[in-house]
Amino acid sequence: MTVTFRDVKADILSRITSDVWGPGTLLPSEVELAASYGCARATVNRAMRELSDEGIVERRRKAGTRVRMAPLRQASFHIPVVRIEIEEAGASYRHAIVDRTVQDAPDWLRARMQLDVGDRVVHLTCMHFADGAPYQFEDRWISLSTLPQAETADFDRISPNEWLVATVPFSNAEIAFSAAAADDVLAAHLGCERGAALFVAERATWWQGRAITHVRLAWRPGHRMMTRY
Amino acid sequence: MTVTFRDVKADILSRITSDVWGPGTLLPSEVELAASYGCARATVNRAMRELSDEGIVERRRKAGTRVRMAPLRQASFHIPVVRIEIEEAGASYRHAIVDRTVQDAPDWLRARMQLDVGDRVVHLTCMHFADGAPYQFEDRWISLSTLPQAETADFDRISPNEWLVATVPFSNAEIAFSAAAADDVLAAHLGCERGAALFVAERATWWQGRAITHVRLAWRPGHRMMTRY
Repeated sequence: MTVTFRDVKADILSRITSDVWGPGTLLPSEVELAASYGCARATVNRAMRELSDEGIVERRRKAGTRVRMAPLRQASFHIPVVRIEIEEAGASYRHAIVDRTVQDAPDWLRARMQLDVGDRVVHLTCMHFADGAPYQFEDRWISLSTLPQAETADFDRISPNEWLVATVPFSNAEIAFSAAAADDVLAAHLGCERGAALFVAERATWWQGRAITHVRLAWRPGHRMMTRY
Repeated sequence: MTVTFRDVKADILSRITSDVWGPGTLLPSEVELAASYGCARATVNRAMRELSDEGIVERRRKAGTRVRMAPLRQASFHIPVVRIEIEEAGASYRHAIVDRTVQDAPDWLRARMQLDVGDRVVHLTCMHFADGAPYQFEDRWISLSTLPQAETADFDRISPNEWLVATVPFSNAEIAFSAAAADDVLAAHLGCERGAALFVAERATWWQGRAITHVRLAWRPGHRMMTRY
């Protein structure tokens, strides 16, 4: 039976987590490990690379590979479009555009997104529903200098979120998660008390250095973003 | 000059983001790409593997590698111990144990962490300060069946967080981020209004299937958790 890099990785990880190789331990060389596992050195190398990427071991060119004293904890979150987030939870999805205007970019947005004076933007507010109940409120700005076609896009048919993913799939983004109190508008749309604590995401995206969109998403009270490591 | 997998990856990514290879495009084979870049096939393979891991391309054994129609967005967050989070922001760190008791695990905790009836736990509340100002309130439970030494650990000297990282560095965790309104205790400790919206993390960790700790962290109002992709 062939020994895969996953076998090697799992075995090394189990020795580390069971303290056979405790924090700070210098591991055997890749050549020695390959011999003991009866596999190619490249197989051990790939396993080690993943353990290093995950912050479990630390590789130094001359000093060899050690178990980290404390692993670098890293949590990853998939960020699906909201329709998929809702449908994966087994609920039916619907969105509605609340308001849509075209205007000059306000000062705060010009500063935030590095737009020029006089640059035009589409400002959209949009509600997302799960099984008919308020799920998420979206407040979005789209740059018309970069995406003039946003002025006439049919956002009633396809949500701005999905339209953007289809139009500019490979943008770069800055994301921040935080908590905010519901103001009157959010309270009305999400059907909660004014002042309720809401989980909020803000995302700004660029494509090739050009501003695409700025969005602020507020989920209904009680929303949790979960992961494991 | 040697072509590295990073060069190959950057070039492929730039063709994808500049739409030379648009969404859905079937990419040339690894052999063809290796020939065109003048590098080993393994170099192209590594670049492709990373692009695949990052959700940019989709690899199918027989059908070849395609640019995804919509990339799988994934955001990663490093989760440092709070002392490092504060010190990296350039502030001075201090912690204080607010309360510490040893007791039978309450029912909700037994259910959540899969503890047995009669299992004992340490319950700690702890404040973390940045430049002397309230930064984070910690409400933590540690299983004494798994970690009996937690009963006598000197948490005034080393925070429970850092003590646990040093004692059980390689645990598995479930993490959830959410928003919560400050209750009277949180408001008093964090120096904010009752009802203020707080960013909250809950983390439950196990080691080899045995319960280690459950913690709920609430940051001062305005805290943001940021990343890029």
